[in-house]
Amino acid sequence: MKLTNLKYCSYCGSDIIIKVPEDDNRERAVCSNCGVIFYDNPKIVAGCLLEWEDKILLCKRATEPRAGYWTLPAGFLENNETTEEGALRETFEEAGAKAKKLKPFLVCNLPHISQIYMMYCGSLIDGNFSAGLESSEVKLFPENEIPWSEIAFPVISRAIKLYYQDIKNDTIKIHFETIDRKI
Amino acid sequence: MKLTNLKYCSYCGSDIIIKVPEDDNRERAVCSNCGVIFYDNPKIVAGCLLEWEDKILLCKRATEPRAGYWTLPAGFLENNETTEEGALRETFEEAGAKAKKLKPFLVCNLPHISQIYMMYCGSLIDGNFSAGLESSEVKLFPENEIPWSEIAFPVISRAIKLYYQDIKNDTIKIHFETIDRKI
Repeated sequence: MKLTNLKYCSYCGSDIIIKVPEDDNRERAVCSNCGVIFYDNPKIVAGCLLEWEDKILLCKRATEPRAGYWTLPAGFLENNETTEEGALRETFEEAGAKAKKLKPFLVCNLPHISQIYMMYCGSLIDGNFSAGLESSEVKLFPENEIPWSEIAFPVISRAIKLYYQDIKNDTIKIHFETIDRKI
Repeated sequence: MKLTNLKYCSYCGSDIIIKVPEDDNRERAVCSNCGVIFYDNPKIVAGCLLEWEDKILLCKRATEPRAGYWTLPAGFLENNETTEEGALRETFEEAGAKAKKLKPFLVCNLPHISQIYMMYCGSLIDGNFSAGLESSEVKLFPENEIPWSEIAFPVISRAIKLYYQDIKNDTIKIHFETIDRKI
């Protein structure tokens, strides 16, 4: 949401003005009539990196952005969900897959798009998966067949790289990272 | 934001309707004219637990909710910030303090209020601190003087308890927790 694009109060329909509210230190969209402040904050993306028989599960995106590119099942956390619940829901919605032995694995800040990724890793509970509405294909890849040049987002490449690095060191760690693409 | 309270599109001023958008599976506020979907998602609260000479820094809240109760400096993450930047900003705004040796310490889901806390721990860079606008008092407490019955929120008590538990075990860990107060 771009602050200056907001024109009308969602509650009373009056004009929105952009100003620094009292006791605040940055500009917000504020209703000129009822005074409601419309905050806009970073969003959490929750997802899973799941292995099965030494392969990992990737989804080919059916929707923009980056349709046709491969990604890990992940999506925006919904209200009243935990990050783990969100990761499991997205995995089932996008990849028709269920997970076990889930562990937090990567927290990655993407400040340029105001997103925080919370990725879990674990195993499929069985070998079952199927493409959901947002995927055109879901597939297990061994490490030497990961389509690195066709991965949808840098944060996804980073998660996969960290996973294989940890596997080689025999310990899945919890990583805190920042990928900043301010240009 | 309660979905049904939204009446007018912020962009074009037309009526909002509540419906499940195409390719979605839950109700959203959608503009009946321009079709914009108003998503509402969990918010991240970033903050710090800082020690100085075997004491930890607490702030007495000057604002509701829980005015008069003690808390760790923390607040909503802003767009284009990393969680660490947000934690440091809130610490400076609320406690006039700067931190060093910052490490991620606690990720805590509060699904009943759709918040995810991201707490860091570290040290003050010097002994300096001062109450910001949202604090009526800022003070260093040794462990045996922590005002447990006057801590503002369960997640803050939990963070302090985990900190002392880790200190006793000589290792600050990264904790992933959920505090669910659905009643």
